[in-house]
Amino acid sequence: MSESTVETGEYPAPLSSDGVPRPRRAAEDTPGHDAVVLLERTRGVVDPELRAAVQSLPVQLRRIALYHFGWSHADGTPAAGNAGKAIRPALVLAAASALGGANARAAAVRAAAAVELVHNFTLMHDDVMDRDTTRRHRPTAWAVFGVPDAILTGDALQALAVRLLAVDPHPAAGRAAARLAECVIELCAGQQTDTALEQRAPGEVALDEVLAMAEAKTGALLGCACALGALYAGAEDEVVAALDTFGREAGLAFQLIDDVIGIWGDPRRTGKPAGADLAVRKKSLPVVAALTSGTPAGAELAALYTRPHTAGDGAEIARATVAVEQAGGRDWAQAEAADRMARAVQELARAVPAPEAAGGLLALAEFVTRRSS
Amino acid sequence: MSESTVETGEYPAPLSSDGVPRPRRAAEDTPGHDAVVLLERTRGVVDPELRAAVQSLPVQLRRIALYHFGWSHADGTPAAGNAGKAIRPALVLAAASALGGANARAAAVRAAAAVELVHNFTLMHDDVMDRDTTRRHRPTAWAVFGVPDAILTGDALQALAVRLLAVDPHPAAGRAAARLAECVIELCAGQQTDTALEQRAPGEVALDEVLAMAEAKTGALLGCACALGALYAGAEDEVVAALDTFGREAGLAFQLIDDVIGIWGDPRRTGKPAGADLAVRKKSLPVVAALTSGTPAGAELAALYTRPHTAGDGAEIARATVAVEQAGGRDWAQAEAADRMARAVQELARAVPAPEAAGGLLALAEFVTRRSS
Repeated sequence: MSESTVETGEYPAPLSSDGVPRPRRAAEDTPGHDAVVLLERTRGVVDPELRAAVQSLPVQLRRIALYHFGWSHADGTPAAGNAGKAIRPALVLAAASALGGANARAAAVRAAAAVELVHNFTLMHDDVMDRDTTRRHRPTAWAVFGVPDAILTGDALQALAVRLLAVDPHPAAGRAAARLAECVIELCAGQQTDTALEQRAPGEVALDEVLAMAEAKTGALLGCACALGALYAGAEDEVVAALDTFGREAGLAFQLIDDVIGIWGDPRRTGKPAGADLAVRKKSLPVVAALTSGTPAGAELAALYTRPHTAGDGAEIARATVAVEQAGGRDWAQAEAADRMARAVQELARAVPAPEAAGGLLALAEFVTRRSS
Repeated sequence: MSESTVETGEYPAPLSSDGVPRPRRAAEDTPGHDAVVLLERTRGVVDPELRAAVQSLPVQLRRIALYHFGWSHADGTPAAGNAGKAIRPALVLAAASALGGANARAAAVRAAAAVELVHNFTLMHDDVMDRDTTRRHRPTAWAVFGVPDAILTGDALQALAVRLLAVDPHPAAGRAAARLAECVIELCAGQQTDTALEQRAPGEVALDEVLAMAEAKTGALLGCACALGALYAGAEDEVVAALDTFGREAGLAFQLIDDVIGIWGDPRRTGKPAGADLAVRKKSLPVVAALTSGTPAGAELAALYTRPHTAGDGAEIARATVAVEQAGGRDWAQAEAADRMARAVQELARAVPAPEAAGGLLALAEFVTRRSS
């Protein structure tokens, strides 16, 4: 790996296995094509492990978990299923594959399922805490089965994740379990901080705090997924750490872009009304950048944010949207997202110097940061 | 071990290390003395491990956990602490000691702390679900910090338990983690069933269902604690299973006696008004035994239970109390508790034939089943 590759985070043209640059095939040039293929392959190998784990739950908890994963309707009858995009398990498998080839990838399937179980346990609990009534276009588990059942099923999913790793004879399983437990604690701290920041006055939230919260809430599990893949490939500590940072930074880039879309996204594509985040006074990253900008537009936004939104007041949302933009919130978020992605790619190049080996992880990171735009 | 020992579950007179029967010293004859000593010793070695784990949490989660364990006040200032009786960690250490001596006992301290973390994670979540506002004579964590923070801190305590075992180099740690994860799932299922049974009509609850629920909710973790101690002593599978059953049966005996006390206990000793369980229409074990007795008193109780209790109606509580007794609920519960304890002692004798080695576990089981009477 040349020094300049690390500095710029750019990979040279793809090389064939004999080291000679080769042209890309047309299908590979379709944006997101590689990632979509990886995600489909991931669902193909991880879903059976995931379903077997969920099927092992006691009957009532199983029913709620099957519903949450989209594998059954509320009445228990089978459903076509929409268990999410499987980005985290795909990162586990892509990291294992990048560093240890097909054998490591095959060995890491349980770890990939464990990461997906942890992700879904946090979704179930977050929905309870945030009182969100819709997830993946369906009523949330607590909205259907009640708060106690959703809390208990989330608890059981965390335990299922642990059990998957605890019964895995792979030599990396113990370290993976410790790493995943560490990540759960970080996820909880991130969610805790998110709730606390939302309750503070607009002028009392620092940009560093929101960035740290977003890293814990969104970046930590993406980083952990990559780290687990690296552990299953038997990678050195510094390679594991570099892939962890790759996932974290890509996760933060995703969050920044997601927050931009939450304000300026096309309602026909986001499925949410324009400015929905502003209407609920969400302290998203571009908003806090604007609030802390020291500009007149930032002060105007702070004044708007101290009053609750009147439902249907489109003019007020329009004023807030313009204020975030004039205060530099949009530009900052987009530049920050680009910086984070550059850092992610640098770390990836450090951990996986061969561009061919790194291709899957790169494709997933690009997919993640583009998926809702 | 003679066959008759297994059958009757009775230990012969204590033997000295050279096999000669020795007289008991006076202090050992004080009921509960051995158990109290064991519990104090347990707190002495497990608390530092437990505190170190809690101290490693991110600051906000740590504050809530320290409060829950009684180690700090709500404002964060240090408190004298009342983290509970440490029965579960004492069972871990006593089981390890019974089967592997002092070395196994010392090796099992992390596992003992992990069991206590799991116990406390379930307490925090149960308090949220049951809306209980008091625990160990203080406001519950959710009542002080809010529901989201209590859910998140509970989640983090489960992860802390996993991390303790995942970083433990002991060869039994992996199996212990799997066993503990399995137990968490059973605890969740037990709590789920408890909530579901409480919502059913009095005539629609079977005694077997309530017994199974009580075994999952109360017996499972006591059994798991004993099993973990056995694993850390390197015991054979059947010995681990026998100690698991010992803990489960003792736990069920405890629950039966606790339920009797919930109806006939002395308010000055229980700290709750007489008949408190009847006032909230709790479907405790003696109540369900009465409801399913097919007696006129059982029918009278069912009729009372279909109507909500009028606060302060002491005559109605008195009628319900007499009805449970006349329907045989009290006698059944006491006989069932005795049967369960006999079974527990049988299993203990099977797992640990030497009475001297089994003494600690026996003392703890007796303490548990007598502690609230």
